[in-house]
Order: sequence, then C-alpha cells, then structure tokens
Amino acid sequence: MSKKRTGQRHKNKIYFEDSELDFYLQAFPLGYQTYGGATVGEVFYAASHINEKDPDSWVEEWSNLAARVEKGAARSLERGHAASARGAYLRAFTYYRTATPLLHASDPRFRATWEMMRSCFRRAAGLFDQPIEPVEIPFEGNTLPAYFLQAPGDGEKKPTMIMVGGGETYAEDLYFWGGAAAVDRGYNALLVDMPGQGATPFEGMHHRFDVEVPMGAVVDYLLGRSEVDPERVAAYGVSLGGYLVLRSAAFEKRIGACAVSTPIVDWHQALIDAMPPLLRSAPRFLFGALTKLGRLFSPTQQVAFEKFFEWQVGARDIPDALEKFRPWKVDVGEISCPVLCMVGTGEAATFKKQTYACYAALGSPKSLRVFTEEEGADAHSQATNLRLAHQAVFDFFDEVLARPETASKRRLAGGA
Amino acid sequence: MSKKRTGQRHKNKIYFEDSELDFYLQAFPLGYQTYGGATVGEVFYAASHINEKDPDSWVEEWSNLAARVEKGAARSLERGHAASARGAYLRAFTYYRTATPLLHASDPRFRATWEMMRSCFRRAAGLFDQPIEPVEIPFEGNTLPAYFLQAPGDGEKKPTMIMVGGGETYAEDLYFWGGAAAVDRGYNALLVDMPGQGATPFEGMHHRFDVEVPMGAVVDYLLGRSEVDPERVAAYGVSLGGYLVLRSAAFEKRIGACAVSTPIVDWHQALIDAMPPLLRSAPRFLFGALTKLGRLFSPTQQVAFEKFFEWQVGARDIPDALEKFRPWKVDVGEISCPVLCMVGTGEAATFKKQTYACYAALGSPKSLRVFTEEEGADAHSQATNLRLAHQAVFDFFDEVLARPETASKRRLAGGA
Repeated sequence: MSKKRTGQRHKNKIYFEDSELDFYLQAFPLGYQTYGGATVGEVFYAASHINEKDPDSWVEEWSNLAARVEKGAARSLERGHAASARGAYLRAFTYYRTATPLLHASDPRFRATWEMMRSCFRRAAGLFDQPIEPVEIPFEGNTLPAYFLQAPGDGEKKPTMIMVGGGETYAEDLYFWGGAAAVDRGYNALLVDMPGQGATPFEGMHHRFDVEVPMGAVVDYLLGRSEVDPERVAAYGVSLGGYLVLRSAAFEKRIGACAVSTPIVDWHQALIDAMPPLLRSAPRFLFGALTKLGRLFSPTQQVAFEKFFEWQVGARDIPDALEKFRPWKVDVGEISCPVLCMVGTGEAATFKKQTYACYAALGSPKSLRVFTEEEGADAHSQATNLRLAHQAVFDFFDEVLARPETASKRRLAGGA
Repeated sequence: MSKKRTGQRHKNKIYFEDSELDFYLQAFPLGYQTYGGATVGEVFYAASHINEKDPDSWVEEWSNLAARVEKGAARSLERGHAASARGAYLRAFTYYRTATPLLHASDPRFRATWEMMRSCFRRAAGLFDQPIEPVEIPFEGNTLPAYFLQAPGDGEKKPTMIMVGGGETYAEDLYFWGGAAAVDRGYNALLVDMPGQGATPFEGMHHRFDVEVPMGAVVDYLLGRSEVDPERVAAYGVSLGGYLVLRSAAFEKRIGACAVSTPIVDWHQALIDAMPPLLRSAPRFLFGALTKLGRLFSPTQQVAFEKFFEWQVGARDIPDALEKFRPWKVDVGEISCPVLCMVGTGEAATFKKQTYACYAALGSPKSLRVFTEEEGADAHSQATNLRLAHQAVFDFFDEVLARPETASKRRLAGGA
C-alpha cells in the first residue's frame, strides 16, 4: 500500500504502481462495473497490456478495448437484440472514458475519444426499456448538457435527484455515480454538467464560483417537467460537485435536500492546503516553472491539472487559477434544507477537516457519514464503493423528503 | 501470467499467486460485480487482508465482510429502504459464497456459511420489484431447490430459460450466471440445482449421469406455470452444467434450444485427460495416497476435489469416482434442438477438444462460439465476462426460439 500523500484519493492500491492510474482503474471501469459498466475480464485484459511508463499505451489499450466492445454492440443491435446492445454500449462508453484522463485537452485524440464515448452512451441510452433522454438546458445563450432518467411508472410526479459530478467527470458518467441507483429507487434523475464540467469548455464554458446561477436554470427546467414533484427535489454532488451542490443549496431554496461528498466550503483554502509546502511559498514567477518540472506531481497528475485549471477553469497558469478560486466559498449558515455530509477516511486531510467544519456549522437537519477502509469505501467520492454510497444517500433522501414533514424530522433525529 | 497447467481454468492472474484463489476471486466477487453482486472496494479490502498460505484467512475475511454488509442491509430494511437492502443482501450473499470453496463439506462452518449465504440471497430475492420466488421441485420423494424469476410484464406466456450450473455452484449463484440477464431480456428464468449440485448432498442427493430424469421433473414443473410458453423453453448450462444440459437435450424434447459452456460429451475421458500422467497410470491402491499427498493438486484444489468427488458424487475415493463417471456420455446424434457450443481459449485442452468434436457431430442447427483472451473471456465458463457470454447466449436464443420456425432457421444460417 502506498504512503499517504498530497492530493491522496485512495489508499488500497490493487494493480498499478502509479497511484493515479490505480485510482482511475478503481474509480472508472472497476467502480462502474457494479452497475454493469464493465466486466472483470475486459478490464484486466486491457490493464495487463498497459505499460505504466507510457501514457499512450493507457490510451490505446482502453480505446482499442472500447472499439472491440462497441463493434459487438453494433452486431447485436443490427440483429435486434436491444438488451445485449445496450449492455455492450455501456461498457464501450466506460472504456473510452477511461482513456480520456491521460489525454491533454489540446490533443486531437481527446475530442475524438470524447465523441466516441458520448456516442456509445447515447446509443445505450436509447435502448433502455424507459429510454434515457438527452436534454439541453438553456443557460445564458448556451446550453448545459444533461440527461433525464424517468422513474419507473406511468409518468406521475416523483421525487427527483439532480446529480452533479466533479472536475474529471462528464454528464454521462453520472449514470453510474447515481442515476442508475436513483431510478432503481423510484426517483427521476437529472445528470448535468455545470459550466466548466465535462466537455463544456469546448462550448466556451468555464467553471464559476456562483454555481447557483446555472443551478437556477436547471431547477427551472426540472420544474417544467410533469414527472417532477416540485416538493421533492434533491441534489447529490461528488468531488467538486460537493461544493457545487452545497453552494447551490445556500441560494436555491427549491432544492429540498442534498448529499455532498465532500462538502468543501472554501476551495481556495483546500487548494493551498493540498499543495506541497515548497510550492505554497514559491514566488509567482517560479510557480509555473516549478510545476512544469513535473517532479512535484506525476506526469499523470500533470495532465489532470492542466485540463482542469487551464482548460476548464480558464486560468493562464496555476497562480491565476488560485486567484480565481478565492470566491469559491459556501456560507453554510444560509443552508436550510437537510444535508448529508460524506467523506472517506482515505481522503486528504484538508477534505476531512472541511467536512467536519461544515457539518458542525450547519444549522439545518444534518447527518454525517464517514466511510472507512474496512467498508472498502474510504476513497475520494466513495469511488470504490458506489453502492454503499448510494445506500447512504438515498436512504437519507427517502427519509428527509418523505412527508408529512414531522415524520421526516423524527426519522432523521433517530440517526442513520 | 501463470503457465498453462492441468485443470487450467484461467490464464490472466490479477491478484493472488495461487491460481485457484485468483480464479475464485475473478469468477465470484469480481465476476458477479457486473450484475451488482459486489463492489471493488469491498472485494479488494477483503483480498488485501488474506494470507494465501492460510485457507482460514480466506474464509474469515470473506465471511467477516459478508457479515458487515449484511448488517448494513438489515439496517436499511428496518427503515423501509427496499432497494438499498436488496443490493446489500446480494453483496453479502456473494461474499459468504466466496468463503465456501475453501471449506470442507464436513467442516461445520461450511453448512453454517451456506445457510447464511442462502438466507441473504432469499432476503434479496423478496425485495425485487418482481420478487424472485424460491420453489421446490418434487423429484423422487425429494425436492430440487430452485428459483423462478418472472419476466417483466403481467404474467403473459414468455420464453423461459432453465439455468444449470456446475460442480461448485449453488442455485442462488445462477442469478448472476444467467438469471438477471434473462429477465433483462424478457425471459422467465428457472435457476435449479440438479441432484448432487449445490448443497443437495445435505438432502442425500448425488450427481447422476442420467440427468434427463430430474430434468424431466423440472420441465414438468415449468410447463405447469401459466407464465411459461411451452414452445419457447431453452436451457443454459455452465461448467458441469454443459454436460447436464446437453445430455438432457438428447432425451428431453420439450427443450427447444440450448447453450452449453462447455459441451463435454464424455466426462470419464475428460477426467482421465485432465489427470497428470503419473496418476493416470498409478495402481488403484496408490491412487488415494498419491492424491492425498497434496503435492499434485494444490491444497485449495484438494478441498474442491473432495467436496465434488466424495460429497457430491458420493464416491469412496477418486478411482471409485472415475468408475462412476464411465456412463457420463452424451449421444450427440440424438439432439434435435438448436445448440450453441461455447468454449474459452484459456480452458484445458480436453475441454476444447470435446467442444470441437461435439460441434462437428451435432446434426441439429448449431453455432460455435470460441471466447478469446482479447475479449477478456477466455476463462472457464466465461467466468470473467458474464455479460459477453450472455450476449452470445440470449442473442442465440432470441433467434432460434423466434417463430415462425422458418425465420429462426434463416437467421441461424446467417451466422452469429
């Protein structure tokens, strides 16, 4: 097992020496497998052919696997076997998406892989008995890419979960991070990329601290749908989405409950805390050079950092990005809906610190869930145990969204 | 990667040095994960605490994990969260069942673990929107344990798949090996232990070559159910179930199609072929002593062999078991229904040889599917890629069970 380190996202390494690659393996194909997004044989065939020292081999093995599985999906579809095709397209989606974190945003293969990934997801989406509907939510002259999953039934008003991911997810990913679990429990789900997330920078969108503005457009959209019970709208955010959802809840009172993993209330502080001490005190003119030396972060992390800070955040360099994150704060006292705060014991110290501080400061009904190593759920965003996370999240939503109001409060007081 | 060896079941080792343990890891928790039977974090937490040299640590880690997950399931159930409880009980089932292969049949922990395993499965079974129904099929004064899964819909007559496992599966396992895939495609499924399989030796039942006799009772039972279309009954057998289904099809003409992985037509020959040359020529009085030295088979395999040959087959020793397997033959010429023959390139040579021979000898409509390493599906019974196997099996069933008869023949001729 690796030693605890800066920016740590998981502890129990299982296959790759490189901690980032091992996290991607566990979080994406192996994590999604529990909702049918992969099979162990396919995953480890690709993994066993990857040379960790060669990022291109990562990209090629996952892309080639995806293409093979996609071909099989097309064969089943041609012959009218919808469920077989759907299953294979979902796996092809996962494998293409697993290739993407090692591709720079400027690499033409990135956009091509993202397009194939999305195409596979959309083919699968249309093959569910209740098809997943791609939707575009109008926002400031642009559109936020999203998917609407309708709860089983004949379209009567149902509780609805808005799902928001992080700095490395696409709206399509959120099917595995919460969409499938929602529908299984009789919820509608809206999977959405906020500005800056996923591939929205291709459309000129960047991350913004005041995410309550686009969230307002999302809730407007949802409340215009006849399947949505306006009294039972919940939001679930993972990774950066923890902030995005928590911040939204402080302003957007139509959100009736939220679950956040993890509830970061001050991103500027979190970034400073996560930096090695040397970088923290480096003068600005040295900063870029130091980070680009690539000795402080792994080459793998370097791609992720560039893609996030430069492409998604729209910063010139990391010092500029840090400046941009100054207003990323949540006034927890403004939140009035029930909140489930979630964190893993294997996460970085700053994440744990902010989670406990947020939980303490909340004045609304609240619950704290700390996921442990023994539960196989200590990793960032509960990436290695999505089903356990969903058990906590939806059991919480079930109880706090239930009416009459008094019943939900009584249940919450009973502890989770 | 391990070298090819006697009784080989998979090639791409991913975690454990011991080939049997690595196969169990891939075939059970990691294999079942794609249908929600596990999560990567739980699996590798347990795996990382196992000492390969100590079989008890295998049993304890999986049992302890199962107990923890079961406790969480009970908490969700108490508070009325059916989907959360169902998911957790399914995972608890998988972890208890993963403990069992290392327990001798005579070990009191075996029966206790089997009972907990079954109890978890049955709790999950009752929590599906369309509950899985445990049924007991009367047979020769005893009963065959089974589960009936009804296809979605209002109970109108649907195609139905009978699923039969191998020497190391229980009827409950078959939910992952084919039951979930069947229901997803609009089939009913019957998951059944034939005499000798699963835990039926506790009821005094042993394996028998003339499995068409109990299969007759199974088909009688099915045709008595209003949800079953008698014109569209298929059977799918994995591992030893390949023989059991193929043999049944030679006699039981109400089976309209079958898929077999792998189609062993002469088990006595397969066992002889799988034995190391030294054992093959050993005089009987030396045979037992030689095998018990435990040098020829791993201690892990030794438990499996004893459980299968002594407990399930009811043989005094391995030479006696070999005698008992003499009549285990299939007269392929008697089969008149369409047959899908399946084998993995990573399986033992004798399995591949018999598969090709069976396919060549079949006079009925037939298809051959050889699963490769590149597909992540070369392991025995396609254990590491159940979804790819199910794509092949149900696409085949869809086509050959479709009516009118002429259409199905035309499609089959087009190649799969």
